[in-house]
Order: sequence, then structure tokens, then C-alpha cells
Amino acid sequence: MNCGISRKIYLQLAPPTEEDNRSSWKRICDSLQEKGCGDVKASTFVLRKLYPLCEEADWKLTISLCFDGRGWEAVDLEAGDTSDAHYGLAVDLGSTTVVMQLLNCNTGEVVAQESAYNQQIAFGEDILTRIFYSKDQPEQLEEIRLATVNTITGLMERIAAQTGIDTKKCLSMVVAGNTTMIHFLIGMDAFCVFSAPYAVQADQPGFIKGKELDIPIRGYVFCYPGKANYLGGDIISGMVATDLYHRESISLFFDVGTNGELVVGNRDFLLCGAGAAGPALEGGVVKTGMRAAEGAVQHICFSCADPLLVSEERTGQEQTPAENPSEAGTYSRRSDQETIIIGRNTCTVQLDVIGGGAPTGICGSGIIDLISELFLHGLIDLRGKFVPESSDAIAYRPEEEEYAFCYAPGLWFYQSDIQEFIRTKAAAYTMMEYLLSETGLGLEDVADFYMAGAFGTHVNKESAVNIGMYPDVDLERIHAEGNTSLKGAQMLLLDRQIVEELPEILDRMTYVQFGAVEDFLQKMTAASALPHTDLERYPSVKARLDHSA
Amino acid sequence: MNCGISRKIYLQLAPPTEEDNRSSWKRICDSLQEKGCGDVKASTFVLRKLYPLCEEADWKLTISLCFDGRGWEAVDLEAGDTSDAHYGLAVDLGSTTVVMQLLNCNTGEVVAQESAYNQQIAFGEDILTRIFYSKDQPEQLEEIRLATVNTITGLMERIAAQTGIDTKKCLSMVVAGNTTMIHFLIGMDAFCVFSAPYAVQADQPGFIKGKELDIPIRGYVFCYPGKANYLGGDIISGMVATDLYHRESISLFFDVGTNGELVVGNRDFLLCGAGAAGPALEGGVVKTGMRAAEGAVQHICFSCADPLLVSEERTGQEQTPAENPSEAGTYSRRSDQETIIIGRNTCTVQLDVIGGGAPTGICGSGIIDLISELFLHGLIDLRGKFVPESSDAIAYRPEEEEYAFCYAPGLWFYQSDIQEFIRTKAAAYTMMEYLLSETGLGLEDVADFYMAGAFGTHVNKESAVNIGMYPDVDLERIHAEGNTSLKGAQMLLLDRQIVEELPEILDRMTYVQFGAVEDFLQKMTAASALPHTDLERYPSVKARLDHSA
Repeated sequence: MNCGISRKIYLQLAPPTEEDNRSSWKRICDSLQEKGCGDVKASTFVLRKLYPLCEEADWKLTISLCFDGRGWEAVDLEAGDTSDAHYGLAVDLGSTTVVMQLLNCNTGEVVAQESAYNQQIAFGEDILTRIFYSKDQPEQLEEIRLATVNTITGLMERIAAQTGIDTKKCLSMVVAGNTTMIHFLIGMDAFCVFSAPYAVQADQPGFIKGKELDIPIRGYVFCYPGKANYLGGDIISGMVATDLYHRESISLFFDVGTNGELVVGNRDFLLCGAGAAGPALEGGVVKTGMRAAEGAVQHICFSCADPLLVSEERTGQEQTPAENPSEAGTYSRRSDQETIIIGRNTCTVQLDVIGGGAPTGICGSGIIDLISELFLHGLIDLRGKFVPESSDAIAYRPEEEEYAFCYAPGLWFYQSDIQEFIRTKAAAYTMMEYLLSETGLGLEDVADFYMAGAFGTHVNKESAVNIGMYPDVDLERIHAEGNTSLKGAQMLLLDRQIVEELPEILDRMTYVQFGAVEDFLQKMTAASALPHTDLERYPSVKARLDHSA
Repeated sequence: MNCGISRKIYLQLAPPTEEDNRSSWKRICDSLQEKGCGDVKASTFVLRKLYPLCEEADWKLTISLCFDGRGWEAVDLEAGDTSDAHYGLAVDLGSTTVVMQLLNCNTGEVVAQESAYNQQIAFGEDILTRIFYSKDQPEQLEEIRLATVNTITGLMERIAAQTGIDTKKCLSMVVAGNTTMIHFLIGMDAFCVFSAPYAVQADQPGFIKGKELDIPIRGYVFCYPGKANYLGGDIISGMVATDLYHRESISLFFDVGTNGELVVGNRDFLLCGAGAAGPALEGGVVKTGMRAAEGAVQHICFSCADPLLVSEERTGQEQTPAENPSEAGTYSRRSDQETIIIGRNTCTVQLDVIGGGAPTGICGSGIIDLISELFLHGLIDLRGKFVPESSDAIAYRPEEEEYAFCYAPGLWFYQSDIQEFIRTKAAAYTMMEYLLSETGLGLEDVADFYMAGAFGTHVNKESAVNIGMYPDVDLERIHAEGNTSLKGAQMLLLDRQIVEELPEILDRMTYVQFGAVEDFLQKMTAASALPHTDLERYPSVKARLDHSA
């Protein structure tokens, strides 16, 4: 195992004598130097602890070291051998959800994980509202900073209560978050992130003493550096999580939510980009859309006479129970909406609802399934337009003045929802296409596709291919990586080597801001069909369509 | 001029554009790297200042850097070119008096100097009382720590009031103090300094953020490292002040007060030692002794018929007016004690009183003159015993049951005072002799003798030679260096190179604890005559005695 950004070292020192009366601190330093720690800096906290601790512990001591970006600093001193109790914290600082892991830094084991809504939400559901709230208002910026810190310390307390481990004794913390989140954590005005020329205040703050940030750990907080305003530390962390920059084969990393961030490359080159994808994937603008919480339809399957339309993929999902609260494949059969008529077939609409109860809305992965099913069964055409005569479940809704599909009692998915979603998936696909075209590479050159985010783990890959959101490649090449931001934070906590590599990685990355790409909208229009205007790009979907036709 | 431990650099940066939208901090860092500052760390203070400062200042900025022991940290950012206002603080943290200088770090000029009693005195006049007060009493230790800090911040405020310069904007501070003082400054129990095996807690604390010590400067406080419990940072600083460790010729550095600390050596070797000298030199135990304050007799001269007894040295002193408030040579003739009879001569006792008023006691330099005059004029013998019949100014004092000399109306110098003093000067001389003998060198091999401390600047060198406190060498080889502890602090503030050299210097030093030397007392007995049992060691004194005989 590599050396992390913190160390706990048990020392058995000879007590001072008249012949060897080096100072207590020198005695410790000399011993650490022998163990290859170089020159270790003392913190006043440790200097003040030396007496009477050293004597009382009979010079059997455990010293805690934190890397400060340049070398080791001693941040704690304990009696006896406490080197087993060596903990650190990894944090994914999301604008909606903050996830924290307590790591055993000796074994790499995740001891506990907790998540909470980011308390910044009190100042705005979306990030822009928060930015405007605090813009040029130092006191309101401080409110947001404290909300951020309180979210983090709240998670520390919950983990402490849950595990009985004093999280205040954690040595280091690694935070991965987007550029705005890091600005708010440090207390920097974040208007710059969204305003031309998009030169932010600081995107490589490095190691900051926990105390300076009001985060009560022993040592330092490391914030993952960002590459650009829209390509923040969460993405760099994700890239580290997938390790794509070390490999010879080419990978594509994609984190798609309201914004899409991509990296394509290998150990020789890295091209990255970011752009708006739209809120559709997070259930934002869809009328009955919701976050992936209890009551959300997360998967939909039309079970018709023809069994070929129910793919193997759907029943053999890669999701792990921990990441997906309702087990995959446990579709509930709703008695009041048991069947719908599609063409001349009778089909059942099977729903997988988070929590197992009655559905109250639909989340991103459910939407992808639904659109895929609507498309494959001919309820919508390749432009996403409803074909009203195709099913009795499609109805014109006078109040909304548009057609809609009833996916559950009282829950309708509207024409405008589909259009909104298609814009999002077209943007996502186009980013991928554009970035690849910039490298002169095709999809066939990409060995692995890494889909980041909780969203990715829940999405049915085949559905995503069917509607042209994912490229039509062997599904085994598409990896749902889950919370890569958190994973990268965890990895850096345990491997100092990553800190050394980051500047070089950032240097190697070339950034494309899609908003500035000229023919982006044109490409996006081509990608606005289901799955794509150029059906040849989607041979497997073509085959399925041919089959169902 | 060398680079100090702080820098202020004026930057004129290009504002961000779409093409070059590096973050504000990266923009600054890149520019600093071009100027050879290497990787600069940001403090949260600076990160939070970036906006709106950079824009408002049109990217014309002055950044303040402090060396933290490993590299540069940005500790302040200001609009426009403020590089002229670059200040630092040098502190001599004495157990009695704390002296602070405000330095212009660009020019090296001392802008202001203030001194104050160390507020620790509230917890004990002498250092041992303070140590016992705080021993194993964390709350009382904290009282002493705060007294130390308050003394320092009080001086900062006085200097600010005097100069109009905001001392809180000072970048760095260098503190030179003995080991106990540094323990108290940091908040470490100091009992270890005086208790076997004399292994202190930390004697090389290095750079500590001002904030950690509650010292309100922008950057770091550097504490001069010590070599041993009794050979602290004040002595290492003094050694740096004399530069003796760089020279080929051999020097001897001597700081004598209640304790004596010596270093002998050159660029090839350094031998050092420390031992108790006794409080006589600081006016401590002498009955009418006092500190060198208003009313203290600081010089005495017996003006007799024979003009040869008044040496040239006495009228051509090297003291500067700034260091010696009452001008040298302005002896007051006191009408009520105008003349005394010595043998068959009529002499006047000329007094130089600090402040110019009536004398109220005698300080160290006055004592040395007085004993020298008493000895040269035969009022005391070579063992320091009064010869009552030699003068009408010697009388038996029934209350004290001993002989005494009346040096001013109502002010007597007693037999026991002389004995006390002789013990001190014998200890001082013996330390010097012993250390030299350890090197195999003689006085003749020593090119320069550096006498540290305010005491040294006021002492009449010839008087000190006459009584055997200084060795009998060409007086030009004896240098009164004043406050070398302060001077070394000042030098390090302005020259980072010294920081780099210190570890090697400390390594090179070999420490002798005189208390542990076997024949030390025997040697001291030999040195307990005036000027020495072996008069051959004092040819110039022998000549003067022969002349006066």
C-alpha cells in the first residue's frame, strides 16, 4: 500500500540522560528522520503536548503526521501505540448532497459513510441563486461558507455517533467538489465561475489547515484542484478514480447531470470539456420529475407478448444493493394500471419504485427507461413525437395543451418532457462526439466508457443506448462508476503520490468549453433524433427496431 | 542585500481574457514563479482577499510572502505598489527586559526601537520563581504565556503609535531568547530547563504562524534555536551577530550576566559553554546595587594628585550617546563628598550618575570601576580585603558588622559586596580560561573578544582588565557588542541564508556545561585574586600597580 497524506508512527525512544539530553522534540524528529520522514515541522499543539506526555508514556509514543504540500507536519502526539487508530475523511462536496466517508488509513477500509443535503440549499436550490445571494455581500458569503462547514461538521458528528470514533482526531480530509463549492468552502465569492471570462479566484488551493477553514480535524484539508470554471475538482477526482490517465488504452470519462463534464484520453493525452446538459436527467424540469428519492419510479419496463423486447441487460444489472436502495428487477405490478394496449398487443407497465410504495414521480433513470420503451414500442417517433394512435395510454391533456403518456395512475409524462429530455441527451451525446472528433478518434478507439455519478449506476445501459444517450458500443465497455468524486478523494487520502501527479495531469489537460464551439448546435440537432439522425451509428438499436417493426 | 525571510513583490498582471482565463491565484503564482519564488502557498487570508481586490486594483498588486521554513507562503495582498512598506520585527526576549525593533526590510534600517519590562515579572522577579509557579500548572503556564505575548503586543502597539506604521501588517518576526523564554512564549512547561538531565522540550521550534502564538502579524514568528538548556537562542543569535562562525581568525563571544555563556571558535570549530556567574554584575546582591537606571552610579574615578592613574581609556570611551544616556566623562563633582584621603594624597571621587542627579546606588559598570579604583589605589588588597588604614573613606559599619567604603554620601560598598563580585568575575574568567584550554588555545590565539549585553557596552574595559574580569589583552581586541541577541534577530529577518546555516552551526557546536567540570572550582579559586593569583597573566595591571606603588 502506498503512503497516504497522513501517517501515524509508533516510536519507542530512549529517555533522556545526561549524556544524551536532546530535547524531546529533537528526539522525536531524529527518530522520524531515521524512518525516512525527512524534516518534520512541529505544530504548537504538539509542542504543548510534549510534557508531561513523553515522560508519562515512558517515551512510547505515537506521532501523527500530515502532509502539508511540502513536507510532514506533526499534528498530534499520543501515549503508547495508537497507530491502529489512523483515520481520515473523504468528502464529495456536491451542491445538493454532501457525502462523507471515514477511512481507516492503514487498511483503506471505509469504516462509515454518511450523506446529507448541503445546507447551502437554504440560500438557493440551485447554485446560481446561491451565487447571486452572496455576490459582493461578504456577510452573506460568510453565511454560505458556514452552511458548507456546518454540513461537513454535521456529517463528522453523525459518523462519530455511529462509529464511536472521534472524527475530530482524523488527521487529514480530502474534499472533491466543483469550483463553486470549493469557493464557498474557502469563503471566496463565486460569481466569477459563471461570468465571462470565467477566470475563477483559485482552483488549486491545495492543503489548508483544518482550523483555517473551521473544520475540526487535526491536520490539513486538501481540496482537489480544478481545471477550469466548469471542470472542477470533482471531475479531476473522478479522473483519478478511473485511473484513465495512467493507462495506455483510451478511456472516456463522463459525468452528466445538469452539466456534463467529460475527459477523454490516456497516459499520453487528455482532452476535457464541459457544457450545460440541462436539468432533465436530475428530474428537474420534467413535470412529474423528481430526485431519486422514495416514491420515484427508477425503472420502467413494458412487458408485452414479445419476450425479445425485454432484454437480458435489464434483469442482469450491475447495480449493487448498497448503491441502489430498491433492488433491481423487483418491479411492482400495479393492479389499477395493469395493462395498456400497444398497437394490437396488451402490455403491462412494470414499475420499479424507490422504497417499494406507490409512485409519486419519476427520476432520471426511470425517464431513460420510459423514453426507451416508448420509442422501441413505437409510441413516439424518432423525433420523440407521440404517435397518439399507437396506444390507449396516450392522451391529449387539455390543461397542459399537449399529449402525454400515463405511466402510473395520475402520473403523466408529457410531450414537452420528452423534448426537454432529448435536448439533454443530444447535448450529452454531442459533447462526447465533439471531444472525440477533436482527438481524431472514433468510438471504436475508446476502450472504456466511465459514467460517473449516482445517476450512472442506476441507468439501464441498454435504455440509454436505445435513445442515443450512450454510444452504441458493447455494453461491457460502459462502466457505471458511481460517485467517482468521492472515490478519487478516498484514493488521494491513501496515496500521496496522486498529489505529486496532479500538477502534471492538470498541465496535460486541454480544455474545450462547448459553449464556445461554433458548430455545436448543428451537431446537437443531428443528435436530437432517437437514437440519432444517422441510424448507422446505432446498429444494435436498428436491429431491435427492425425486430419490433 | 540578501533576501530576507519575507518579501513584498509588486506585480502588474494582465487581466483575464477568454483566451487566458487562469484563476486569479494561478495568475499571481505563475508570475511569482517567473520571479524565482518557486511554488508559493496561499493562505486563506489571501484567497479571501483576491476578490474584488484584483479587479479594483486593475491587476496592479503587491503580494507579501513569508518564508515558512520550507518555502514561501503568501500572507497578504494589497492594491497597487506597496512594496516600499515592507516591515518586520526583531525581538530580544529577555527575562527582565524585552526589546523590539521595527525594521524596514527593504533597506535594513531600524525604524523604531522600544523596550519594556517582561510582564512575566508579575510571576516572579527571577526566572526560577516563574518556572516553579507554572510547573505542572497548565493554567498558570498559560498566564505566563499570555504575559509574554502581551509584552510583545504591547511593544508592537507602542511602536505603531510612535511611527504611525501598522505593526500588525508586519510580515515576519524573529525572536531571540533563552530556552526558558522560548518555552514560555510557546506555552511549554520550562521546569526541564533547570532540572537534570536538562533535556528541554523543544529548542528548535522554527517557524510558527503568528496566529498560533496569538501574535498579530501577517506571517510567521521564527524563534532562534538553542544549543542546550543554558545556551539558548539569544546566544546563537549573538553568535550570528558577531559572525564569528564565518571567520578564519578565532573569536571569543561572551555574554555575562547572572549566567555566563561563551562561544569560542571560528569557521572550523565552535566550542561553547554556560554556567552560573552570579547576580553581582546586574547589581543584584550588592547592598546598594541597582540596575542601570536613573540614579545609578555607572562610572567612578578617583582623581588624585598623580595624573597617571587616570587613564586615557577612561576619557575616550567607545560608548555612543544612544546606548549611554549620560554622556561618558561628565563626572559630577559632589560638594558634600568632594575629597577623600588615600594614603598621603587628597583625591576626589568623581561619579558618573545615570540621569545626572544625585546617586541612589551603583550598577554593574560602576562596581567594576569602583573595585578597580579601590584596588589600584591600595584600598583593597589582592584578595579584595579592605585595608582600613589606607583611606578615611573606609569605615567599620557596626550594623552590618563589616568594613565598607563610602562612594557617595550615605552610599556604602561593603566587604561582602566585593567578595560577591569577586566570585562572579572569577567564574567568568574561569569559564573563558577553561573553554580556551579545552581547545588547546591561549588568549594570544584569540583575535577578538566580543562582550555581549548592555552591560558590556557600559563597562570600562581597563577597569575590567584591572580586576581580572577581562583578560589582559590589547583593549582594541575587546569589543563591546551591546545587544547581540537583538542584532542577530535583526540580521536573520533580513537574511534568509542564516536560517539555512543554523542547523549546520548547531551541529558544529560542542557544548560544555561548566557545572559538570571537575577542577572548575579549583581554577576559580586561582582566579579569585585581583586581578589573578598568577599576576604574570596581567602584565599591564602589574605595570600600573608597580607605577602606583
